[in-house]
Amino acid sequence: MANFELMRKLSIKTDSKIVFLIIDGLGGLPREKGGGTEVEEAKTPNLDALARESICGMIDPISPGITPGSGPAHLALFGYDPVRYQVGRGVLAALGIGFDLKPSDVSARFNFATVDDEGKVVDRRAGRIPSEEGRRLCQLLEEIRLPRVTIFVKPVKEYRGVLILRGENLSGDLSDSDPQEIGVPPRRISPLSPEAKETAELVNQFVEEARRKLSSEHPANFILLRGFDRYHPFPTMTEIYKLTPASIASYPMYRGVTKLIGMELLKTGDTLAEELKTLRENYQRFDFFYVHIKKTDSAGEDGDFERKASLLEEVDQVIPEILALSPEVLVITGDHSTPAMLKAHSWHPVPVLLHSRWCRPDKVERFSEREFNLGGLGRIPATELMPLAMANALKLAKYGA
Amino acid sequence: MANFELMRKLSIKTDSKIVFLIIDGLGGLPREKGGGTEVEEAKTPNLDALARESICGMIDPISPGITPGSGPAHLALFGYDPVRYQVGRGVLAALGIGFDLKPSDVSARFNFATVDDEGKVVDRRAGRIPSEEGRRLCQLLEEIRLPRVTIFVKPVKEYRGVLILRGENLSGDLSDSDPQEIGVPPRRISPLSPEAKETAELVNQFVEEARRKLSSEHPANFILLRGFDRYHPFPTMTEIYKLTPASIASYPMYRGVTKLIGMELLKTGDTLAEELKTLRENYQRFDFFYVHIKKTDSAGEDGDFERKASLLEEVDQVIPEILALSPEVLVITGDHSTPAMLKAHSWHPVPVLLHSRWCRPDKVERFSEREFNLGGLGRIPATELMPLAMANALKLAKYGA
Repeated sequence: MANFELMRKLSIKTDSKIVFLIIDGLGGLPREKGGGTEVEEAKTPNLDALARESICGMIDPISPGITPGSGPAHLALFGYDPVRYQVGRGVLAALGIGFDLKPSDVSARFNFATVDDEGKVVDRRAGRIPSEEGRRLCQLLEEIRLPRVTIFVKPVKEYRGVLILRGENLSGDLSDSDPQEIGVPPRRISPLSPEAKETAELVNQFVEEARRKLSSEHPANFILLRGFDRYHPFPTMTEIYKLTPASIASYPMYRGVTKLIGMELLKTGDTLAEELKTLRENYQRFDFFYVHIKKTDSAGEDGDFERKASLLEEVDQVIPEILALSPEVLVITGDHSTPAMLKAHSWHPVPVLLHSRWCRPDKVERFSEREFNLGGLGRIPATELMPLAMANALKLAKYGA
Repeated sequence: MANFELMRKLSIKTDSKIVFLIIDGLGGLPREKGGGTEVEEAKTPNLDALARESICGMIDPISPGITPGSGPAHLALFGYDPVRYQVGRGVLAALGIGFDLKPSDVSARFNFATVDDEGKVVDRRAGRIPSEEGRRLCQLLEEIRLPRVTIFVKPVKEYRGVLILRGENLSGDLSDSDPQEIGVPPRRISPLSPEAKETAELVNQFVEEARRKLSSEHPANFILLRGFDRYHPFPTMTEIYKLTPASIASYPMYRGVTKLIGMELLKTGDTLAEELKTLRENYQRFDFFYVHIKKTDSAGEDGDFERKASLLEEVDQVIPEILALSPEVLVITGDHSTPAMLKAHSWHPVPVLLHSRWCRPDKVERFSEREFNLGGLGRIPATELMPLAMANALKLAKYGA
């Protein structure tokens, strides 16, 4: 991983700018024997030209063979050892909606759900109630009072929300109540370590109160909690790299993970065009930009090879706009692979391209996994990208005399 | 890094010989878009032919993105984790001139300098006084007496020297007095940790005495100290690898770093021809040879692409002489890259070639960064070279049954 001690010691504040364009789920697999992957079948003349002038290679998000979730995969991109720096989805959800989480707050994600008269889950998403309705129900739940803790219940989107407990000696070591299937009752929340006993009791009490409050509601008459975690701040990118980083992402999860490491969350829209507008408008204020493209991953998860390839062609079209800003370093990669053929995240390494005045060119001629295998970066852990980007931006001093 | 525990356990003393030809600052960058690097533009028919029979690849001196100084870069070549094994320039300078440093001696490098009537530095090198003059002034300073410590003041070359303090409870945790600029007075030496307080006082006292002694000298009327460190011996290559290693290098810094790890310093000259003569004459007495070529790095630091390429062509010419000795393993690489375009050491990985009867050939056809990217060694940390060289020399036993 990026050696944070070295980075803290060697990093220098300069005016040069680094842009990380992260195409979620970038890497793919061929549809048929002898065919190309989504990346290879897409027509990407701009990315191909850029690859010729860049140094290319493959990154392993965690280590060979390991399929990462989005949280650890993103942490690795920014140099954080994803095995050492672990964070629960509850914390990411709270940070992602801009909630001002304090150290030792405990958070969990939840869904509004529908249970039948016997208390069995019949719809884990309560008919995907509109965001408006979710917001009203969250306010209702926030009226609940528990001993010794303050409760926050915040809407995320539609049927999704986040619960935050603030108080002394809370633990995030709790099991989910969401059974992840229908036809069974929600689970009772259990402590996963002895220290979590009291917190588990408090949360079960909250669930009981919530059941009462929601009993006359329809279809959202229950909540299902998951991803409990206690917030402990991570070292920020400013502390480690002396960067002033900005996050351009619309999905709460990615906003959360970048907020966690100290990026400023910029207000942006759902489309690539809106994200690029945000990049342009804020280009002078920061020296590091994370720009996140989500739809490629969703297409991969849907098993839609064509759509994923066509989304990559859309990304290709905006490359000249990014290059027009002349960032000293442009990194284009993904957080992980999501081959449409697997309809899921996968362990396959992810193609990566680093463009800078100082990168040593290799023989890569096209934006393609097959070509990138032979690139000058070789196959490296994702956590090595940040030191390379910092070096190419001339933001690292020499180590030792 | 080379796992020293494994190496100590598995290494075997044999007659086979390993030669490390280290071309300082070897790796480069293209002069213009689409062009070749210094290595690629140089005409190197012998190295090209050797590459075809060798296994090739790229090494990272420290880790991707980190630009190393010469000390850590060299330690890595010999398998020493450069982050764990740190050493100050003062120690390297003392060892480099053959001074018999004892554990816990504290050393610093110094320049004779010129200060004006107000005590401001006007020339950090005292007009580059001749070595003869430097030697006389060192003798003068060695007359200084301090309480509780013995002082050694030894000339290095021209205006450069080394100060060694020997005594109880000394610390090397001291700031430099050299301000590294002119027009300002030398800095007072400060302790960088509480334990160094007494040593700082002693050294400041020495500086004061030196000022008095040199007051009537011209132009060398002061000294500027830097790179304080306390000597603690490293495990030697003999202890780790059971080798009898020899160092063939003319610059004190490289003599120092190889002395530090137990190499015998062979008397040699400044030219490649003299170094090769030293290699031939001592070939029977040792089983490991470090041969250092400095001028390529200097050309890179001067930003002289042509000169660096032409020096590489000179190196190419002597390859047959080295091969005529038939070493069981010949490794040719650099300690780091020094692209003329950057006029400085850089983070770029360094091409490496390992030639032996037992190396598995790859597809590399030329001595070139672009080709070596595709070599059979892949991209590896520099610290892995020694185990590979040992293996190819059949000097490592099997691990486990």
